[in-house]
Amino acid sequence: MKQSLGNKTLLPTPVWVIGTYDKNEKPNVMTAAWAGICCSDPPAVMVALRKATYTYGNILAHNAFTVNIPSEKYIKEADYFGMVSGKNTDKFAATKLTPAKSALVDAPYIEEFPLIVECKLIHNFEIGLHTMFVGEIMDVKAEESILGSGDLLDISVFQPYTFIGANAKYYSIGKELGKAFSVGEKFKK
Amino acid sequence: MKQSLGNKTLLPTPVWVIGTYDKNEKPNVMTAAWAGICCSDPPAVMVALRKATYTYGNILAHNAFTVNIPSEKYIKEADYFGMVSGKNTDKFAATKLTPAKSALVDAPYIEEFPLIVECKLIHNFEIGLHTMFVGEIMDVKAEESILGSGDLLDISVFQPYTFIGANAKYYSIGKELGKAFSVGEKFKK
Repeated sequence: MKQSLGNKTLLPTPVWVIGTYDKNEKPNVMTAAWAGICCSDPPAVMVALRKATYTYGNILAHNAFTVNIPSEKYIKEADYFGMVSGKNTDKFAATKLTPAKSALVDAPYIEEFPLIVECKLIHNFEIGLHTMFVGEIMDVKAEESILGSGDLLDISVFQPYTFIGANAKYYSIGKELGKAFSVGEKFKK
Repeated sequence: MKQSLGNKTLLPTPVWVIGTYDKNEKPNVMTAAWAGICCSDPPAVMVALRKATYTYGNILAHNAFTVNIPSEKYIKEADYFGMVSGKNTDKFAATKLTPAKSALVDAPYIEEFPLIVECKLIHNFEIGLHTMFVGEIMDVKAEESILGSGDLLDISVFQPYTFIGANAKYYSIGKELGKAFSVGEKFKK
């Protein structure tokens, strides 16, 4: 029996930290959960931001951003990045994390985070309170420590985590459940 | 030390099953991982689909779709939904799952899945191989069994899971790590 919960945004989402430079080249980061991959060719991601965020203007000023995926180790830093604005805070200084200049786009990434994506802005679409920024993935960079042998990424070292808006809580990624395009094979005639 | 992996779409993503009717009102479902929440007001989601999918035409024909979140129990069914096309397959018949008519939009949802979202199409944007469909969330419906007492959703009963494209594998949601807008408090001055 299903119960109606109303028109809410309470689904499980990723936790992405968006890196940008402001107009004075000061690096900034903010945490976003309204985000996802949105195209294979060109490879692209979407992140949805309110106009009120500092990152909104930064992306438009530089036509670039990075996506930085935190490990559990950096959950406190990543949470903080979503609590304060870069307008009046130096979030790198406050957390003692290190901004690194991207090789391919005009945006900084977080040196300490295990997986980062360099994105060139290719579209922005107004939806309502949020604007969708679509970035073409120019490169993905991973810490060598999280590279697996059989799998591309060793998830037990990577330790990304997820956000569930319904509970406003973070959850770890748990055990491996099976291979995609494979576990459902039994239903094929 | 970071290693370049190239311009790939290998980030952790959600697993969403998209429900639609075709032009003959036959219910269909497909699994998508290029998806996410994209606006708070109006509450909205984005799902990116290739034109070649049956769901692409179905959404445009009915201006509606549902998002069905599988529990681990239905991982095989959800994987199968991404392996075959509704053009020549009745995926509900093959899996013995039950299509239910949505109350608010012209699209079916999966009766057995624990959490579903009814969406009205409000935008579609061409990105490249994929088109982004933006749906306004009209309602979320949850099985009463997954409703928690303190938290809105009891994750240990809900058991959603995630997909990591880098490894082409599914992973469970693990333990609770902390409250958002709270665990990062210590960095605030």
